[in-house]
Parts: sequence; structure tokens; C-alpha cells
Amino acid sequence: MPMNPDAAIEVTAFGWVPDFARGQVRDLRVRWALEEAGLSYRTRLLTGERPAEYYREQPWGQVPFYREGALQLFECGAIALHIAERSEALLPRDEVGRGRAIAWLFAALNSMDVPVMGHVVATAFHADEPWSPGASRAFGEFLRGRLARLGDWLGDSEWLEDRFTVGDLMMVATLRSDLALEHAPDNVVAYVRRGEARPAFRRALDAHLADLSPDPA
Amino acid sequence: MPMNPDAAIEVTAFGWVPDFARGQVRDLRVRWALEEAGLSYRTRLLTGERPAEYYREQPWGQVPFYREGALQLFECGAIALHIAERSEALLPRDEVGRGRAIAWLFAALNSMDVPVMGHVVATAFHADEPWSPGASRAFGEFLRGRLARLGDWLGDSEWLEDRFTVGDLMMVATLRSDLALEHAPDNVVAYVRRGEARPAFRRALDAHLADLSPDPA
Repeated sequence: MPMNPDAAIEVTAFGWVPDFARGQVRDLRVRWALEEAGLSYRTRLLTGERPAEYYREQPWGQVPFYREGALQLFECGAIALHIAERSEALLPRDEVGRGRAIAWLFAALNSMDVPVMGHVVATAFHADEPWSPGASRAFGEFLRGRLARLGDWLGDSEWLEDRFTVGDLMMVATLRSDLALEHAPDNVVAYVRRGEARPAFRRALDAHLADLSPDPA
Repeated sequence: MPMNPDAAIEVTAFGWVPDFARGQVRDLRVRWALEEAGLSYRTRLLTGERPAEYYREQPWGQVPFYREGALQLFECGAIALHIAERSEALLPRDEVGRGRAIAWLFAALNSMDVPVMGHVVATAFHADEPWSPGASRAFGEFLRGRLARLGDWLGDSEWLEDRFTVGDLMMVATLRSDLALEHAPDNVVAYVRRGEARPAFRRALDAHLADLSPDPA
């Protein structure tokens, strides 16, 4: 859906981020879910210093933050699940299919994101520290183990279960950084590329990038 | 609820773990949710080498795994949410309260568990590596920042929102290791102790420990 300034759903995102974060900030995941579900939304862009009140909305001072009437949500997983509840495009209606999709949603954000972010912190955020190479090897090994298991699970399947769900959306989003994919088996790389090729993802990425100013406010 | 060998719900747990993991393995979180919800369950205990087939149930070879009729779930967050859907003791029925509880459930398993597990991996799992002290300081700093924000959010409140929910259950479970709490403000420590004092938690911990054999199979 095109963004719509009159939409009931408001997504808070950053108005500027450094180059390495463009295309990776987590509002993108929520935009993607909204595009898959066919729901229009407006954005509120944060620029400059975070106001103190913002921490009463988003306790970590991060994005995305989601508002829809009286409902205020943070955490991309909770927001994606809320959107998925509205749309069979993201969440099967039967109890078993629904449960499997939600299991993969949590798997992406916990079992997979813990080693992904550990590897990113050790490798990129502290690249200049003398301990970085050793820690990077250890977290890389942890990540490689999880990716190998994911590759075994996938085999030559298109998606994690018998159709695309919010679980695939979050797993693809978690794995699409260069640092995550350098450790991935070929079938996992192909899976991530398949997710990124979805029209809804392309629209979400374009909107995410269009909202980012070239210069800090 | 007492465990019941005829229960419809089956939780898979380990039959033995090393001393440092006793009281920390994630089947405890699911047992706690079941106790809060008043649902009885039986356990299947894994001993010795993990059979290859188990990875088709739990893709990472970890516990817990949950079976209930045709429904098979992995990831403690997905299982806790499934249980919470059955019981107002864990999940408010109104949309706003429900959304807030689920936001905190994801917050525990993503925004908080990423630095907790990063800190545990750097500090404990690789204690003998020369890079461990430096990495431990960096992940400790990351964790301390999140814990400070959590302390600001809590203030002198009893729970994260206006009542105990599955979000508190998971946040308390995520933070109750010594390595997490050594970095926590006093009000966060008191919050975790309040969660651990709940009768349902004590029953779940006793059942978790009772299922652990003193020696590896």
C-alpha cells in the first residue's frame, strides 16, 4: 500500500541513520508486514536528540514504535504479530499452521538473532578493539551452527513451512545483512534472496529509504 | 498443577544438565506458564546423544519442545504465548492489555536476551580465552544500558504494566541468572525476586529440578 498521511496506523522510524544502517533499521520489518497485509500507514520520523518522553513509548529509545488508536506497541516482533493477526497473507487461520508461523517468528528473534547480533557487536561495533577478532570468531562459530541447522531444516523447500508466513518475513529480515550471510549455507542465502524479491519487501525498502534524510538534522 | 502422565500436553526437557544449568534450562519457563495457567502436563526427557529425528521437531536440537494433539511447537516464547492465549492469568483479554503483554514478551526474548546471552557467551562460555575479558566488558556495557532503561521504566511499579502477564514471566526468567543480575539496578533485582517468589514459579522450579538426574545417562 502507498503510505497515507491519513492512515490510522502510525509507524515511528528514524529520519536519518548512518550509511551502514540504511536498509537495516527495524521499521523496515514492520513496513514489510504492512505491505504484505495490504494495510496503509503513515510515519512519524525522529530526528536529532531523542526526547525524554520517547522512552515512555519505546523503553529502549529504539524504533519501530507503532500506534493505532489506543494501542501502542514496541518490539518489531510484537508489531509484526499484531499485523499478521489481521491478514491470512502472513498468518494461517488454522491452529497448527498459526502455531508454526509464530514459532518461527520467535525463532528468528531469539534463537537466530542472539548469535547474529552477538556476531555484529563483536565484529562491527567493536572492530577496533584488540579482543574483536577472537570474539568475532567465537560468535561466528555460534552463528554458523544455527545457520547450518536452518539449512538442514529448509533443504530445498521454498519457505520454512508449506507457505510464506510472518515467520519467514522475520527470519529473512534477521539474516539479510552481509555479516549474517557470510556464514550461511547456499540454500539459506537463496531463501533470503527469495524473501527480498517479494514485491511487498521491495515497496517497504523503497519507503524506508525514502524517509531517510541524506544528512543528520 | 501437578505433573500428570495422562495430560494432553507434553513438554520435552533434558534428563540431565551440568550443575551450572540446573534451574536455568528453558523448559522451566514453559512449566512456569503452565503452572500460572493451571494446565497439567507430562514430560518427555531427553538423555544421552540427541537422535537425528529430534532436529525435525526442534530445529536447533534444544529444549523445550511442546506437543499437544496435532500441534507441535518450539521456542519458549511461542509456547508461552500459546499457553497464555488459554488463560487470563497470563494474558489480558482486552486488545490494548494483550498487545502490551506480548510487546514485553518479545522485549524479553529480543531486546533483553540479545545482550544477556552475548554477555553469558563472552564471559562464561569462553572464560579461558584471552579475548574474554574485553568482550565481557563490552557486552556487559550493552546489557547495563538495557537494564538501566528497564529500571527507569519500572520505577516503583510491581510489574511492567498494571498487572502480572506473560511478559513479566519471560522478563523475569531472562534476567534471573547471576550474570544478568550483577548489572541490574536495585529495583530490577527486586522485580526479578518478586517474580521468583510466585507460587507457580516455585512449583515449576521444583518440577524442573526433580526431572534432572544427578548423573549423565
